[in-house]
Amino acid sequence: MNACEVSRDDLKSWDRIIMGIDPGTNVMGYGILGVKNKKPFMIAMGVIELHREDSHYLRLRHIFDRVLGLVESFLPDELAIEAPFFGKNVQSMLKLGRAQGVAMAAALSRDIPITEYEPRKIKQAITGSGAASKEQVREMLRRMLKISEENLLPQLDSTDALGAALCHFYESQRPQIEKGCKSWKEFIAKNPGKVKGL
Amino acid sequence: MNACEVSRDDLKSWDRIIMGIDPGTNVMGYGILGVKNKKPFMIAMGVIELHREDSHYLRLRHIFDRVLGLVESFLPDELAIEAPFFGKNVQSMLKLGRAQGVAMAAALSRDIPITEYEPRKIKQAITGSGAASKEQVREMLRRMLKISEENLLPQLDSTDALGAALCHFYESQRPQIEKGCKSWKEFIAKNPGKVKGL
Repeated sequence: MNACEVSRDDLKSWDRIIMGIDPGTNVMGYGILGVKNKKPFMIAMGVIELHREDSHYLRLRHIFDRVLGLVESFLPDELAIEAPFFGKNVQSMLKLGRAQGVAMAAALSRDIPITEYEPRKIKQAITGSGAASKEQVREMLRRMLKISEENLLPQLDSTDALGAALCHFYESQRPQIEKGCKSWKEFIAKNPGKVKGL
Repeated sequence: MNACEVSRDDLKSWDRIIMGIDPGTNVMGYGILGVKNKKPFMIAMGVIELHREDSHYLRLRHIFDRVLGLVESFLPDELAIEAPFFGKNVQSMLKLGRAQGVAMAAALSRDIPITEYEPRKIKQAITGSGAASKEQVREMLRRMLKISEENLLPQLDSTDALGAALCHFYESQRPQIEKGCKSWKEFIAKNPGKVKGL
């Protein structure tokens, strides 16, 4: 279920394509973000329903096949995953880890680099608050990416996934101040050409 | 690292090939079991070292590539996985789940059915005691499969994996008394042709 369909030629026109995934054991959300002239646009979003598969292995198989299908359809350059690091209990974390692992394997098998983001981090990046609700994330994405109501799926897993992709886009746009520099002063000293107005 | 190398023609001579895997985040063990005339033999065993890979993703990628490589080299009909259902904490279970998921994806991508066994169940099947040590499992496998000392790897992950494969072989050989039959009497009544000497 894609909110909009694109051809391979359309995909070539993007500078960069980011796939976001919100992996779960019942529903897996995905969102495809295209970047042109440093601006993000929604290309597609959807959910992979796993309720119908009775066996745990059939679900994992379904995740692998569908994620690989998305990779082959949208040719993403990067994968951003929403990944909670803490869960209710060891059993549910094992199951979640398997679902994540299978989705990651599909991307890794096509040499696509993966970055994970905690749900709190994604909410912070999209809404400005790490404690925002999923509905708030959805509403902010609708406004920021100018998604029409008919293209916005009701399932919050799909907007969560799109949020992961947009969070990854913002992170990659930020100056690398956090990596190896303790302050702006140090960053500016190390990267004189990167800061305008000096 | 295989204890013995086999050609594709050699593989065709087996009635059935079972791959056993003991997935871990530092070392992954594997064992390949061939079945001929209902008797099991060790075809290969080894370990996939993951210490060398610095990043978590490189490790997962390495697991996927190597398991897929084993599947393509040995063409197993079934995969048996040693899978602990309880662990120390949610963090380690998430990591283990990912390693398992990636290994499973490699098998699922080639339509290979998967069965999991708890470590206790494997130890019980091989040594007769669910509380046996890994060394005891190794020693029993050496005797039962008549593996020469030079072919037996020192790493216990490889014998654990071979143990999973042998456990799966035994389970598949057992009459299906536990599935839907409450007693031998009921099993015999339902399966008159399956029991000799009636």
